[in-house]
Amino acid sequence: MTGTESTAGRTSIRLQPNGRPRVVVLGGGFGGLAAVRELRKSNADVILVDRCNHHLFQPLLYQVATATLDASDIASPIRTVLRRQQNAVVVLSKATAIDLERQQLMLEGVHEGQAEPMPFDWLVIATGAHHAYFGHDDWAKRAPGLKTLEDAIDIRSRFLLAFENAEVEGDDKCRRAELTFVIVGGGPTGCELAGSMAQCARCSMPRDFRGVDTRTARIVLIQGGDRVLPTFSPKTSARAQRILERLGVEVRLNQHVTDIKEEGVFVGDDFTPARNVFWAAGVQAPSITRTMGIEVDRAGRIPVGGDCAIAGHPNVFAIGDVASATCAKTGRPVPGVAQGAIQTGRHVGRIIAKEIRGKTSDRPAFKYFDKGSLASLGSGRAVADIWGLSVGGRLAWLIWGLVHIMFLVGFRNRISVMVQWSIQAIFHQRGARLIAGEEEVRVKLPELPSNRDHGS
Amino acid sequence: MTGTESTAGRTSIRLQPNGRPRVVVLGGGFGGLAAVRELRKSNADVILVDRCNHHLFQPLLYQVATATLDASDIASPIRTVLRRQQNAVVVLSKATAIDLERQQLMLEGVHEGQAEPMPFDWLVIATGAHHAYFGHDDWAKRAPGLKTLEDAIDIRSRFLLAFENAEVEGDDKCRRAELTFVIVGGGPTGCELAGSMAQCARCSMPRDFRGVDTRTARIVLIQGGDRVLPTFSPKTSARAQRILERLGVEVRLNQHVTDIKEEGVFVGDDFTPARNVFWAAGVQAPSITRTMGIEVDRAGRIPVGGDCAIAGHPNVFAIGDVASATCAKTGRPVPGVAQGAIQTGRHVGRIIAKEIRGKTSDRPAFKYFDKGSLASLGSGRAVADIWGLSVGGRLAWLIWGLVHIMFLVGFRNRISVMVQWSIQAIFHQRGARLIAGEEEVRVKLPELPSNRDHGS
Repeated sequence: MTGTESTAGRTSIRLQPNGRPRVVVLGGGFGGLAAVRELRKSNADVILVDRCNHHLFQPLLYQVATATLDASDIASPIRTVLRRQQNAVVVLSKATAIDLERQQLMLEGVHEGQAEPMPFDWLVIATGAHHAYFGHDDWAKRAPGLKTLEDAIDIRSRFLLAFENAEVEGDDKCRRAELTFVIVGGGPTGCELAGSMAQCARCSMPRDFRGVDTRTARIVLIQGGDRVLPTFSPKTSARAQRILERLGVEVRLNQHVTDIKEEGVFVGDDFTPARNVFWAAGVQAPSITRTMGIEVDRAGRIPVGGDCAIAGHPNVFAIGDVASATCAKTGRPVPGVAQGAIQTGRHVGRIIAKEIRGKTSDRPAFKYFDKGSLASLGSGRAVADIWGLSVGGRLAWLIWGLVHIMFLVGFRNRISVMVQWSIQAIFHQRGARLIAGEEEVRVKLPELPSNRDHGS
Repeated sequence: MTGTESTAGRTSIRLQPNGRPRVVVLGGGFGGLAAVRELRKSNADVILVDRCNHHLFQPLLYQVATATLDASDIASPIRTVLRRQQNAVVVLSKATAIDLERQQLMLEGVHEGQAEPMPFDWLVIATGAHHAYFGHDDWAKRAPGLKTLEDAIDIRSRFLLAFENAEVEGDDKCRRAELTFVIVGGGPTGCELAGSMAQCARCSMPRDFRGVDTRTARIVLIQGGDRVLPTFSPKTSARAQRILERLGVEVRLNQHVTDIKEEGVFVGDDFTPARNVFWAAGVQAPSITRTMGIEVDRAGRIPVGGDCAIAGHPNVFAIGDVASATCAKTGRPVPGVAQGAIQTGRHVGRIIAKEIRGKTSDRPAFKYFDKGSLASLGSGRAVADIWGLSVGGRLAWLIWGLVHIMFLVGFRNRISVMVQWSIQAIFHQRGARLIAGEEEVRVKLPELPSNRDHGS
């Protein structure tokens, strides 16, 4: 606003008290959307608050980072997703604090530093998590992580720019470092990034460059544990490692990164010269969880009971990656994957819907149903753990593709992603090879010997 | 680079002197690419320098700004476009100066403020132009123009954010200003933006919002001249104006914007409250044209002869929007459109190819062949001047669509654009409704009345 008009007399649009209970859902990811949808028939005002206007399909984010898909293919405006749910209102805003005492969410206000309260009757915290550097926040600049669309576009630009730099780099050692990509973390994101980058360098790019052979790019995957994909079965882990190694990825197990410099990565005394480091290890809940005055775990996650509610606050729930929940059947923690978020979201939505209808019987305890795990490792290759079976190769990739198309939100995105995948499979072309942000383009040009004595 | 290695001993990759003349083309737009392609059979090293890694299909840029297409649909990596032309090398770098005396292009170097020379035997300047504010550079922040992908994404974010702000804005006057979009300039870009924005507000968005009727958005097109599309025939201009007005666009002719404030736009004493102003008036050649020590015109464009070469420098050419060229047949200036760039590019490419082959007969003078003009005004509606005929409505739109698909670079982009258009035509959904840059999201929330007395 211009600062000239007074705030007096401003009335909230469509957010007036109308006698209906208000459910505020913070975050429009898998968990938040699932909770909102579960409330579609409820006699309540459901307000979804997110600082982004889009729901992001995170499982395919690595494909934006490696230029297969463009941002809009995996994102849908939350408003459009919820357009048919008449009791749902979407508010684009950033939440700064949660006030359990006064039962309100604090939203970033018009004026700098000023917060505006949004009271709630029920609150569902579904912010998700972002990546964490285990106390080494200075690594963030050199080793970007992959959680948002902006992250993906940043990684894509760095990845593509490395080849541009290598193309004109005269010094062999520098060119080597320019073409070395280190990925820290061997979970699904790390493995998928590594596989996709290796394939891009080997299949999509070679013909485009004159001065470098992009197939010589070195992709190093550093994993702290003794196998990649530690949440998968050991057999599938071994299979995934074989697939990655066949693609040319250097898989290093039992190694912990001790420092990340501009010139490369240290694992103890062992130094790997690399100009490009990407971070796929460790997650952390956003700082808003620490504003509630309750105890959170080391990663900032909110401990919840079997009903996914916070102890002592039966009307405040936490779901998905921001919650530290336990499966009532197995006693194991609910994994930080899309399925975990969706299932906790539905669970909470059902509880709220029921209690708004006046049924206040005992709340059921959450049971996680493991539908299986999937990871794609380059086009045409994937691994999967399904119903206790380890599947690999083309069959796994087919399942992976079908499942991801199915779960993508929005008909348009499904069509678009299928088209992009087909084009890549047939022509080995990646559609979204765009380096963003002109300002950052700074290619290191070697001194050129004069060419003027020749020619016309 | 890290700054620790020495630059001594660095050799340029693939840019060594090899006895072949070197043609440097600055800019990978329509003109630059046309010139490079014309040299495909030449015994020369062709070096295309651009600060972006992609060729941009500017005629559809407004569709990125209005969320129909995403960035990658209208951009192709220049390397991929030229992958089959073995004598062409692409260098991603920003040119800072042209040294006609020493026959070299100065490129931004490794170290801050240091430039690296790239000698040339032939130079083709094809940088294009950017928008200009007629000396009011302070308007740039408030009224962004549309020339690059970044511009388009910025405009898209502002356009979409306006509706988000309006949705939660409690004050009627503020909401009105938030939903008023002023477009300055009634040329093709201005008209296409206005038509597309009007359609988006009327057809794609209404069902997504609860608090505002997006159909009440006011779109104002301010044109300095006495008709829109002044380069088209008067009949077509009138037709375009009718189409725009039917879409709800307020067309204002013979008006000159005198000031742009955060609160709105001044035309003399007449003030229009508007929070969103977009600039589609006036172009300016980039400042590099002023580094050559030759006289340029008021817009910074380089005056060229009939051969598109600079007077006194027969081996240095300027083409497309950066040149001030004249058609040898009509004596009229070559228009700043894609066709003008492509045709001057080919003309120059042919001259260079011929002279490299040793034929130094008189150079032919450039003749512009007007293939017609097209402008799309919302899905399903367009106007065209073709072979002296004025065409409007669905037929013009069909021609417009076919021509644009045909001229789009790259098979993948053609498919993708057709898919997006079909989806929009059928479902009235725009695929790329993404607000970029979380940091900028700052929605003005009204004070909410408490809702806590009600409900559970």
